[in-house]
Amino acid sequence: MAPIAQTIPTTAGSPLTESSTLPFGEYLFRRLHQVHKVKSIFGVPGDFNLSLLEHLYKTDLEWIGGCNELNAGYTADGYSRYNNSLGVVITTYGVGELSCINAIAGAFAENVKVLHIVGVPSRMAIFDEQEKKKHLHHLVNNIDPFADSDRFVYTKMVEDITCVSEIVTDATTAADQVDHVIKEIFKTSRPGVIFLPVDMSDVPVEASRLTLDPADRFHIVEDQDPALTNKLSTVILEKLYKSTNPAILADVLVSRYHDGVPLLREFVDRANVHSYTTFMGKSILDECHPTFVGDYIGLESNKGVKENLEDSDLVLFFGPHLNEINTGHYSFDLQEGQLIMLHSDYIKIGSEVFRGVNFVNVLRQMLDIVDVSKIPGPRPVPFEVSPRYPHIPSSASISQSVLLKKFESFLRTGDVVVCETGSFMFGIPDFRFKTDVTYIAQGFYLSIGMALPCSVGVGIALRDEGSGRRLILVEGDGSAQMTIQEISAFPHYGLTPIIFLLNNSGYTVERIILGEERTYNDIKPWNWSKVFELFEFGNQGHCISKTIHNEDELERAMCEIDSNTSNLQFFEVILDKLDCPWRFHHMNNYRLFPLEKKIGLTLN
Amino acid sequence: MAPIAQTIPTTAGSPLTESSTLPFGEYLFRRLHQVHKVKSIFGVPGDFNLSLLEHLYKTDLEWIGGCNELNAGYTADGYSRYNNSLGVVITTYGVGELSCINAIAGAFAENVKVLHIVGVPSRMAIFDEQEKKKHLHHLVNNIDPFADSDRFVYTKMVEDITCVSEIVTDATTAADQVDHVIKEIFKTSRPGVIFLPVDMSDVPVEASRLTLDPADRFHIVEDQDPALTNKLSTVILEKLYKSTNPAILADVLVSRYHDGVPLLREFVDRANVHSYTTFMGKSILDECHPTFVGDYIGLESNKGVKENLEDSDLVLFFGPHLNEINTGHYSFDLQEGQLIMLHSDYIKIGSEVFRGVNFVNVLRQMLDIVDVSKIPGPRPVPFEVSPRYPHIPSSASISQSVLLKKFESFLRTGDVVVCETGSFMFGIPDFRFKTDVTYIAQGFYLSIGMALPCSVGVGIALRDEGSGRRLILVEGDGSAQMTIQEISAFPHYGLTPIIFLLNNSGYTVERIILGEERTYNDIKPWNWSKVFELFEFGNQGHCISKTIHNEDELERAMCEIDSNTSNLQFFEVILDKLDCPWRFHHMNNYRLFPLEKKIGLTLN
Ligand SMILES: Cc1ncc(C[n+]2csc(CCOP(=O)(O)OP(=O)(O)O)c2C)c(N)n1
Ligand SMILES: Cc1ncc(C[n+]2csc(CCOP(=O)(O)OP(=O)(O)O)c2C)c(N)n1
Repeated sequence: MAPIAQTIPTTAGSPLTESSTLPFGEYLFRRLHQVHKVKSIFGVPGDFNLSLLEHLYKTDLEWIGGCNELNAGYTADGYSRYNNSLGVVITTYGVGELSCINAIAGAFAENVKVLHIVGVPSRMAIFDEQEKKKHLHHLVNNIDPFADSDRFVYTKMVEDITCVSEIVTDATTAADQVDHVIKEIFKTSRPGVIFLPVDMSDVPVEASRLTLDPADRFHIVEDQDPALTNKLSTVILEKLYKSTNPAILADVLVSRYHDGVPLLREFVDRANVHSYTTFMGKSILDECHPTFVGDYIGLESNKGVKENLEDSDLVLFFGPHLNEINTGHYSFDLQEGQLIMLHSDYIKIGSEVFRGVNFVNVLRQMLDIVDVSKIPGPRPVPFEVSPRYPHIPSSASISQSVLLKKFESFLRTGDVVVCETGSFMFGIPDFRFKTDVTYIAQGFYLSIGMALPCSVGVGIALRDEGSGRRLILVEGDGSAQMTIQEISAFPHYGLTPIIFLLNNSGYTVERIILGEERTYNDIKPWNWSKVFELFEFGNQGHCISKTIHNEDELERAMCEIDSNTSNLQFFEVILDKLDCPWRFHHMNNYRLFPLEKKIGLTLN
Repeated sequence: MAPIAQTIPTTAGSPLTESSTLPFGEYLFRRLHQVHKVKSIFGVPGDFNLSLLEHLYKTDLEWIGGCNELNAGYTADGYSRYNNSLGVVITTYGVGELSCINAIAGAFAENVKVLHIVGVPSRMAIFDEQEKKKHLHHLVNNIDPFADSDRFVYTKMVEDITCVSEIVTDATTAADQVDHVIKEIFKTSRPGVIFLPVDMSDVPVEASRLTLDPADRFHIVEDQDPALTNKLSTVILEKLYKSTNPAILADVLVSRYHDGVPLLREFVDRANVHSYTTFMGKSILDECHPTFVGDYIGLESNKGVKENLEDSDLVLFFGPHLNEINTGHYSFDLQEGQLIMLHSDYIKIGSEVFRGVNFVNVLRQMLDIVDVSKIPGPRPVPFEVSPRYPHIPSSASISQSVLLKKFESFLRTGDVVVCETGSFMFGIPDFRFKTDVTYIAQGFYLSIGMALPCSVGVGIALRDEGSGRRLILVEGDGSAQMTIQEISAFPHYGLTPIIFLLNNSGYTVERIILGEERTYNDIKPWNWSKVFELFEFGNQGHCISKTIHNEDELERAMCEIDSNTSNLQFFEVILDKLDCPWRFHHMNNYRLFPLEKKIGLTLN
């Protein structure tokens, strides 16, 4: 039987019989391919992962190489954010995995489901007493020249920035380990790691699991405790029925669990109560829905938003991610008595905490049993909602205020907007998005340079699902310099995003904080409009670049965009280096005068 | 007195009196400026380090901003390598420091003196019980939503890749901590870190140390145990006098300690014994010196080199860095009886180990007391030294074999060559460099993308010392894609390197190992010759780019280079994707057939 098992067909899509074995590398890719929406895999090769990568070609997965590992990590993050499923990045020992580590930390901070697979030395090199004396390339040696180098030195580094990590060295447990990592990633919506010795890829493992227990339901949130789910749904609905002025606040974790967004949108629609999103939760709810009031960011909200939400006698706070940025520097003034928090790890009703229950299941149950006639109908919000500072002047021909307004009206239903960390990002909460806009940004970890590769991942995800949605990227010049090379992925894969490059001569965010005219806030000037001379191979003319100096040019560019849908369109917009949205000025005052006396809502 | 102390002049270069205090940020930069050759500082700003950066302008230090933190780290590494002194890189909390971590690991692996200063949250945010409840931007939260986030989560990550790290939170110990870090860095020639809370920069500290105990001798290697140094020098010389066929082998650590290179060159010259360098030690010795035999890389040496060295009855092995790559995959066949190892941490004579003594002091003492008449005069080497495979054919018009030969003869006295990790690197040991060539490469850690930013650091170091030496960078296309944006530093700072970009359509090193035609070894094609359309601002024409398709064009380009010394010159050389130097093919056979049976020289 063995010889037959070893000669099972292994070409793409070939059927597997129950008694088959197949090389672990192939097993791993087939398993990943079973996971919801996983069609592309990201990374950079290296001698410790080549034997694994070879097996990719036996599946229908596509390899998307990154220019470097940080970019590849950000790209996988974007793929995951858009799909709300796994984003897989593969790197090599040391040099690769460490180059990627900041993307992993960002995914951890923002609950993104990145699976990092790291090719490591062979089991012999790791475990054999003689071989352990060798100092291997890519592996830092010990500071003591007489000591062996620690094969697991990098493994330890990621303990606090991953939900799980497994070193796979045994064929009999390998498949279990893979499933364990994938499940933990979905459960926590945090990155996980598989460390794979280079000689493991060709080791035969049982294939049966692929057919008997496919991974195509791993993304579905399991109900750990249906009785508790039941009970809590009832309790929460009772509270809702009794409230006079309820509200729903949607935060980012809603978008991190399967069905979170459609279920919550449905609930808002049926319950018909006032709805709000947070800074990081932006676009989770339908902002054109009549219930929608605005973005609640504590003291950094628009006029009336904070007052209205905090006036509610019951706030159902879904998917909360309490942190400095998301809470307007801890200026959420919400009391336990008025608050129910529905998180992926717990439900908190007043001061009572119930752990081990995920909001998705509670929400689904609530939808099943809700009697909407008992929910108080929405009355007009007591405080008028209006822009806080409608216009901040600029010494350039285009101000960010004007750009923000034009950009808001330029957006349309179905757009996918990726926004870089930078000053412009802090204007976005003033937008009212049209229905079904998807907004993606790294609003808490705030690592600049992330958005460009992230948008490549989003672009690949759109392509993989055959979507015709517009992809729009807003980039700062300082941020773009961090990861610019990845822009070459767009023409390479035939993607046609619309890119706005905001050229304000450096790090405006930092200038506002300190050093307005300091050289440390300058960047090296580039000819932005020539970016595709280098990065689009062979002058195919697929990429169109323009520099925009004034409102007229901006207006015209935005009008003409749709006549060019088969082109990538890149607009360099010239802004003043000290111009930024009101919210960032505001935030910065908190920095100078921190709100120490009174810290708003915290959990810990 | 205090008020006077607080009003001391703090403009660049202003004198300090003994009784002065000054803000710690200013103190730190003044201290760094006192260190041997530290004139420029590298990094990227962020809100946690701005208050520090402000103080830079009170000194004559220059800020060199990187496009991203990994690049900035590599640049500081290059500055350090060239100067054999401190390279300082400043980043911000989390996002910045983690982006840089791979550069720090590389510096650790290759004993490079990088000082990483990380701006972290204020002491209040770190230590105050209430404030610790906040989840700060750039800081990963705990996986448990009810736990505080760990302010030192990143500090722990670098424990095994730094020689020392200090969190500076107390004005009374701050100056001590700074000196401690700098001294440890020089002592171990490894990177160290200072974590600096954002509110520490303006805290006043005593200035007296700056004048009473300046840091301008920190780079000089202290003799911990002069009696031992004395004894060992005598013992080693006695052995040398008694030997019949001695040799000197110079490895990379020689170049990491002050005076290591000039002292060893002088010793080789006076002792007049056969001399060799290792893969990583390349260019430490004068290769035109009559004693020079070649590069000893075990089985990866040229013909006759291994045979000659191993035939010596006494090998003085200076600055050893024993690792897989440097030892030809552990094929050094040297016996304890014939070997003296002179390291920065120990001297090993036969089987006897003496710790706590640095080769530099022993070498200096040896030079003082040597009686060269007692050293056996060199006899002709017994084995003829010749190229192993003089020519490897290529299907492109230019082969790497030809390129290597032309490149070798193109180099001249005084050149500084930075070579990227990649196939070409493994041809370099076949070169005989002219006198006073400096060769810089990351021969053990082998992180691709490192060389380009590293060469920016070298370029700044050359500029800082007012040198007219030619700077030559050899880059692979795959590697260049990792960090290409930093090339814009050259025109920005008016540097004029000569750059060879070897375009062989992807990752040739990996193709040779596995996946010759696989997509994972492809890269996105770029119009390399247009690189400065984007990166040289305003089309100044300072940068000249050419594509080279054949030997004639190569010949002509090399001839014309010197007529253009005021320009940056960029040559894209078209090579075949499967062409690589013999040594890499050879190494790769070891991978397939590892030398398990017999592991050559190890220490541990
Ligand atoms: C990786 C990383 N490095 C540094 C920072 C600090 N930082 C935050 S915003 C910013 C400036 C961004 O500049 P740009 O993209 O031009 O946007 P602008 O501020 O000009 O709007 C910097 C340097 C960061 N957040 N992430
Ligand atoms: C940061 C990093 N990622 C991946 C690798 C694995 N690796 C080593 S050499 C190489 C290919 C380099 O390609 P190129 O610069 O084009 O040089 P070539 O091999 O073609 O000569 C790769 C991907 C590495 N060493 N470092």
